[in-house]
Amino acid sequence: MREIPLQTERKTQLVNITEDVRNAIDGRERGSAALVYVPHTTAGVTINERIDPDLLEDFEHAFQTIVGEEWTWRHVDADGPNAPAHVRASLASPQVLVPLRDGDLALGTYQGIFFCEFDGPRSRKVYVSTLA
Amino acid sequence: MREIPLQTERKTQLVNITEDVRNAIDGRERGSAALVYVPHTTAGVTINERIDPDLLEDFEHAFQTIVGEEWTWRHVDADGPNAPAHVRASLASPQVLVPLRDGDLALGTYQGIFFCEFDGPRSRKVYVSTLA
Amino acid sequence: MREIPLQTERKTQLVNITEDVRNAIDGRERGSAALVYVPHTTAGVTINERIDPDLLEDFEHAFQTIVGEEWTWRHVDADGPNAPAHVRASLASPQVLVPLRDGDLALGTYQGIFFCEFDGPRSRKVYVSTLA
Repeated sequence: MREIPLQTERKTQLVNITEDVRNAIDGRERGSAALVYVPHTTAGVTINERIDPDLLEDFEHAFQTIVGEEWTWRHVDADGPNAPAHVRASLASPQVLVPLRDGDLALGTYQGIFFCEFDGPRSRKVYVSTLA
Repeated sequence: MREIPLQTERKTQLVNITEDVRNAIDGRERGSAALVYVPHTTAGVTINERIDPDLLEDFEHAFQTIVGEEWTWRHVDADGPNAPAHVRASLASPQVLVPLRDGDLALGTYQGIFFCEFDGPRSRKVYVSTLA
Repeated sequence: MREIPLQTERKTQLVNITEDVRNAIDGRERGSAALVYVPHTTAGVTINERIDPDLLEDFEHAFQTIVGEEWTWRHVDADGPNAPAHVRASLASPQVLVPLRDGDLALGTYQGIFFCEFDGPRSRKVYVSTLA
């Protein structure tokens, strides 16, 4: 298992980590899938299009609209009332699993892997491992 | 890794691919789980009830309501302004992982595996592989 | 593959099953990830913060708000018109996959694994297996 460290810059931010994941699995050519796991509770990971930066903004706004800050929330933690960030993280998902083909990620032509920050800016990490 | 080709018929459509996945893993009785992966950015995959066709319509309407076409969106690609389709695909998820028991999918009694089209009609494919 | 039985108590309820999963993988120290799979169609599983009980209520309310009971639904099954429960289950996800480190779940400091009931109270089960 390898760790990818990253630093986010905004409250809600999708960060393309495709190359980091690719580097982390380098040389693991005998695995059949790569597991990308986020050990945080206000961040997740998803796979989507890596071409258009405008789409990342659309995703950021969409997560904020699907789970509204203005709803009635009870949870307050050391960082303040951030329950919407927790729910958005679960909607995004704590992990993705990508099949490997000849040792490389079998992503679709337009796909990238995106870390999803919902309570930034923060120092974060992602775990990458390969499965047999 | 095997590929299942499929052709969708509507913009938003859930397609039952359970038997296709079962056929794709036929003979892989030593695996412990089947990975069903969608290499597209406006389609995903989910697991839910395979009995009532009305429920599929409910899912299709629900995804369209959870992520509204009328929200403010920026992304335009070769297919037009389809950002909602991208977000719905991520909410559905790019993959499911089903445990295997005696070489068969350990699905619940009522469960099926559904390809989720959000920007059809299109020619699509799904990758199926087994993990040790 | 091991089965964890559980009994839920409310229509919508997140249940912390982290210790049950940990017990189910006990002694599987050679695996690289634990698959937690829900074989039901109105329940799912997610990973989030395990510290504050208020957050679980927030999650329960959020799932009910993201997918509204009052939307137009068609599906009726033996348990009545419960389509929203099906959609919430798919949004939560039918499975999570957690990397193993030295035979234990490599969860983040604040993470727990939560069974997500959306059509309780019911007798439920969860499948836990390890991947090589």
